[in-house]
Amino acid sequence: MSERPHTPLLDTVDTPADLRKLKQEQLRQLSDELRTEMIDAVGQTGGHLGSGLGVVELTTAIHYVFDTPTDKLVWDVGHQCYPHKILTGRRDRIRTLRQGGGLSGFTKRAESEYDPFGAAHSSTSISAALGFAMANKMQGRPGRGIAVIGDGAMSAGMAYEAMNNAEQAGNRLVVILNDNDMSIAPPVGGLSAYLARMVSSSEYLGIRSMASRIAKKLGRRVWGGLEKAEEYARGMVTGGTMFEELGFYYVGPIDGHNLDHLIPVLENVRDSEQGPVLIHVVTKKGKGYAPAENSADKYHGVAKFDVVTGEQKKSSGGPPAYQNVFGETLAKLADSDPRICAITAAMPSGTGVDKFAKAHPDKAFDVGIAEQHGVTFAAGLAAEGMRPFAAIYSTFLQRAYDQVVHDVAIQNLPVRFAIDRAGLVGADGCTHAGSFDITYLATLPNMVVMAAADEAELAHMTYTAAEYDDGPIAFRYPRGSGTGVEIPEQLEKLEIGKGRIVRDGSKVAILSLGARLEEAKKAADQLEAKGLSTTVADMRFAKPLDTALIEKLMRSHEVVVTIEEGAVGGLGAHVLTFASDEGLTDGGLKVRTMRLPDIFQDQDDPTKQYDEAGLNAPHIVDTVLGALRHNSAGVEEARA
Amino acid sequence: MSERPHTPLLDTVDTPADLRKLKQEQLRQLSDELRTEMIDAVGQTGGHLGSGLGVVELTTAIHYVFDTPTDKLVWDVGHQCYPHKILTGRRDRIRTLRQGGGLSGFTKRAESEYDPFGAAHSSTSISAALGFAMANKMQGRPGRGIAVIGDGAMSAGMAYEAMNNAEQAGNRLVVILNDNDMSIAPPVGGLSAYLARMVSSSEYLGIRSMASRIAKKLGRRVWGGLEKAEEYARGMVTGGTMFEELGFYYVGPIDGHNLDHLIPVLENVRDSEQGPVLIHVVTKKGKGYAPAENSADKYHGVAKFDVVTGEQKKSSGGPPAYQNVFGETLAKLADSDPRICAITAAMPSGTGVDKFAKAHPDKAFDVGIAEQHGVTFAAGLAAEGMRPFAAIYSTFLQRAYDQVVHDVAIQNLPVRFAIDRAGLVGADGCTHAGSFDITYLATLPNMVVMAAADEAELAHMTYTAAEYDDGPIAFRYPRGSGTGVEIPEQLEKLEIGKGRIVRDGSKVAILSLGARLEEAKKAADQLEAKGLSTTVADMRFAKPLDTALIEKLMRSHEVVVTIEEGAVGGLGAHVLTFASDEGLTDGGLKVRTMRLPDIFQDQDDPTKQYDEAGLNAPHIVDTVLGALRHNSAGVEEARA
Repeated sequence: MSERPHTPLLDTVDTPADLRKLKQEQLRQLSDELRTEMIDAVGQTGGHLGSGLGVVELTTAIHYVFDTPTDKLVWDVGHQCYPHKILTGRRDRIRTLRQGGGLSGFTKRAESEYDPFGAAHSSTSISAALGFAMANKMQGRPGRGIAVIGDGAMSAGMAYEAMNNAEQAGNRLVVILNDNDMSIAPPVGGLSAYLARMVSSSEYLGIRSMASRIAKKLGRRVWGGLEKAEEYARGMVTGGTMFEELGFYYVGPIDGHNLDHLIPVLENVRDSEQGPVLIHVVTKKGKGYAPAENSADKYHGVAKFDVVTGEQKKSSGGPPAYQNVFGETLAKLADSDPRICAITAAMPSGTGVDKFAKAHPDKAFDVGIAEQHGVTFAAGLAAEGMRPFAAIYSTFLQRAYDQVVHDVAIQNLPVRFAIDRAGLVGADGCTHAGSFDITYLATLPNMVVMAAADEAELAHMTYTAAEYDDGPIAFRYPRGSGTGVEIPEQLEKLEIGKGRIVRDGSKVAILSLGARLEEAKKAADQLEAKGLSTTVADMRFAKPLDTALIEKLMRSHEVVVTIEEGAVGGLGAHVLTFASDEGLTDGGLKVRTMRLPDIFQDQDDPTKQYDEAGLNAPHIVDTVLGALRHNSAGVEEARA
Repeated sequence: MSERPHTPLLDTVDTPADLRKLKQEQLRQLSDELRTEMIDAVGQTGGHLGSGLGVVELTTAIHYVFDTPTDKLVWDVGHQCYPHKILTGRRDRIRTLRQGGGLSGFTKRAESEYDPFGAAHSSTSISAALGFAMANKMQGRPGRGIAVIGDGAMSAGMAYEAMNNAEQAGNRLVVILNDNDMSIAPPVGGLSAYLARMVSSSEYLGIRSMASRIAKKLGRRVWGGLEKAEEYARGMVTGGTMFEELGFYYVGPIDGHNLDHLIPVLENVRDSEQGPVLIHVVTKKGKGYAPAENSADKYHGVAKFDVVTGEQKKSSGGPPAYQNVFGETLAKLADSDPRICAITAAMPSGTGVDKFAKAHPDKAFDVGIAEQHGVTFAAGLAAEGMRPFAAIYSTFLQRAYDQVVHDVAIQNLPVRFAIDRAGLVGADGCTHAGSFDITYLATLPNMVVMAAADEAELAHMTYTAAEYDDGPIAFRYPRGSGTGVEIPEQLEKLEIGKGRIVRDGSKVAILSLGARLEEAKKAADQLEAKGLSTTVADMRFAKPLDTALIEKLMRSHEVVVTIEEGAVGGLGAHVLTFASDEGLTDGGLKVRTMRLPDIFQDQDDPTKQYDEAGLNAPHIVDTVLGALRHNSAGVEEARA
């Protein structure tokens, strides 16, 4: 066990109540110790480092000034919440972050009363904080809503919708815009340029002059009896008009690492009768840890690392990540097809679109955290003859579901959906799991839904999607590394709606969709060893179903098991619906569906998660054996 | 047949090419004739009148100035597209609007090359237009993207996301903000107030002075060699800063009914090398037709009406609309429960929230066209002890799917979803059908999903939802009038996950979810007449399933049919998945699922739509008879 850092002042603070006993001049030391503690902890666990480092002083200041947990503090996304966790009674478990059974890497209601609202997806904080503010207002009790939201998260439409509705909350709502000119990737778009202009054209004011301006603006008289300033005054220092036009009092920009600035500003806002207020705080992602400050992504998400050198534990090499197989395959295809283009929503490296963009910069679009726009933009591109690939994680595509339905599927436009992070995802937990896309896509007319069993299949599906111009087509694949199969030089255009038999048998048929194929093959070996001849099919398509293959296997096998890395309503449901309606099961056939369980699973090692889900080889074997036992006993008895 | 209005000039115009042959001074007369023609047509068909009347001059001017269909004109929502349809080759069918087999009430790609992008849901136009612009830019060919979007639609996050990405399109993108201070209901929020301030503080300029300012701003020299103005100049007349901060050139506000202003402004924009441009046009919804101008909702959507008097055909009385049963029930419940509150996304009357708001104005929230915010706001309210009802149409809840998953279901917060317009919806067609909600909600852990068979059930479900604090709960119900059943004074708290037997039989069991129950009962009568004893169950819940009831019926009946007003993946899929996994079907059982077909159905009378879908009583009978026949023949042969 490594030696813990020396943190004498932090050791006296378990909750914000302890923090508030400190003198303001002690907060600098406290923040330094908090930063040291966090670096040490994340060095052991890995996780989101840069974001937390950027808000150490802000976290300290908010809990010092505001009355948490009565005031409801909502961290947007939650990547930056580790210092908050340390200050709110969870320091003892901070070295379990993102581990199975440990603390979540995001805020989580079940963990603490100081986490009034869980997060992980971007741009929800203002809406939630507004809900808290209005609920307390209606119930006539204290409690503000305080949202801390990054500039990247502000690019999402949802944040704008919330700002557009904020005025009713008055001084019960405080929005702190944490402007670090970064979200995960550098931000894009008009808003980002606007914020940059505000910051670059300003000089930070001295504390006396700043405080007096804020006091004037918010109508407080404590700073020398200044008159109430007119409402909708133009931005205090350099701008803020846009926020003021939407109904906010704008304060900023202020230096988010200077506690002598932060504390009085927050106190003024806290005591103001005016609102809602937007405080524009400028911070530096990775602040205070040189290796993070100097890295391009500011150590957004890191593996375990050496605190002194900053060196991250390398992964052991091995097969390529699915996202890179996708990005590189698409780049290669685009060399000879000028119609191919790619869209990412602020996830260039996570989706592999960075690989594509390097080769075809004019054909790659990073739309920011704006999945809704991204999908309909892709629909427009498709309508005008391009071959757009919208590369979006399964869980984030939920943000654009209506656009998938209304702009793509109804119009039958050939948008290609490259759906990464399908299935369980490990340390990020349930908020990032890709559990529902098969169900929510395969229910749509016109939609083609594929799932890749391995990285070679992914390459074939990328090519198949590129060549398919008849309507929308989606292909899903897991987080992480492939299985190590070779990716053929010559890609294959898959026949739409056709699966493949990967192993021939006669008694048991396993219909697999996606990356459970390896487990299905293992299970088949084990069944074979028990004398049960087993067929394994890689269905490839959840929609359209390979009905000929299903019918053939159902008519020739005694037990049919479907397996997929998705929730109820996907492959299993489609197979059963087809089979029942065609009467294939009328005469008796044991069909079992294996899928994600009806719970939101917490973070853990992916293999353990699939154990919990009951989707590994031993579970397949058990399911088959159970079905075979059931045949001769329970059912006949019950139906007699 | 009524006499058609006299429209000599309009009679010479079939397409925009004809329009462009006219002299500019003829456009006033053309617009007047176009308006007369439209009033006459909608008088016969019913439909969206007010929006179209407001854009008669704008439609004329756009097609006169821009090079449609090479320039891609995208009407947001499409309520306002009737004049556009008349001018783009569809005048001969304009009196078939919204009828079965007739013209769609929205833009539709299949109808015309002048409809490059279909619409119906709000706020998609800028994203789509940007797609067209960039596709043509990348392919090096002409073609702008022109989006016409209302001020109400601008309140949606999606429009903001698109604006935030617009700069790259340069002068290939033109956004026309059609500001009529109305969408369907009066608009809400900060943006609306902002636009109102801009308009109210301006006086329209004379044409010479306006044109010269625009020429200066956009850097054109045709208006007298003026120097190129600096980029990011503050708004031309009164503002526009917000749009300019996002990267647009702002022009406006201008009078959208004055062709002498519209034409030169559009020409300037067309010929400018600067862009993207946002033109702020002020129009009056219902313009030029006194009954519409004087009505509160400006004749947004009308029944057939008398052109002279404006009197709309009344509906024949009869049972109350589902939405009103919901709104009134909720209002009554809130009289004794201060925790109940309601959220609508710009649909106060469509959802019945207006009825609730009248009784409890402080507990009703109209968030504007902002379903994403609305749902997470509701989650915040629920987290702080309120009992929020998010009343959103099935099709529009798609806009907030990620918020339902991430902010509500994962956190298991008791948000109540009142889902109107479930199932097929008639004249609005496939874009408004509520086809997918059972599937996309029932796949989520923690979610309870109910469907009301009639208006009394809806009242019970509203009460049940109010009293259910254990997690999220949704209840869906159809568009239109109830069945006429009495609504009991004393509402019943339904047991979660329990259905009810409405008719007892022994051979055939029909498991119905929602408003197909009437058809199921009719079918049972017909089956009974053929000697087939038939059970009918109202399942009430798609999730949790009443597994005890299903098992009992499956073990005691020969044929089991599920029926629902939703697409694949809903009740039928859940019943089959449960039954298969439990081995209930191992010994042979004829199960059939009846659901919406795998197509997007066009507008028609709802009964005809359900005929096309195969979900009326005769189809149920046929399905049962088919299953019974199948039993003795096909299956035994095939499995022998």
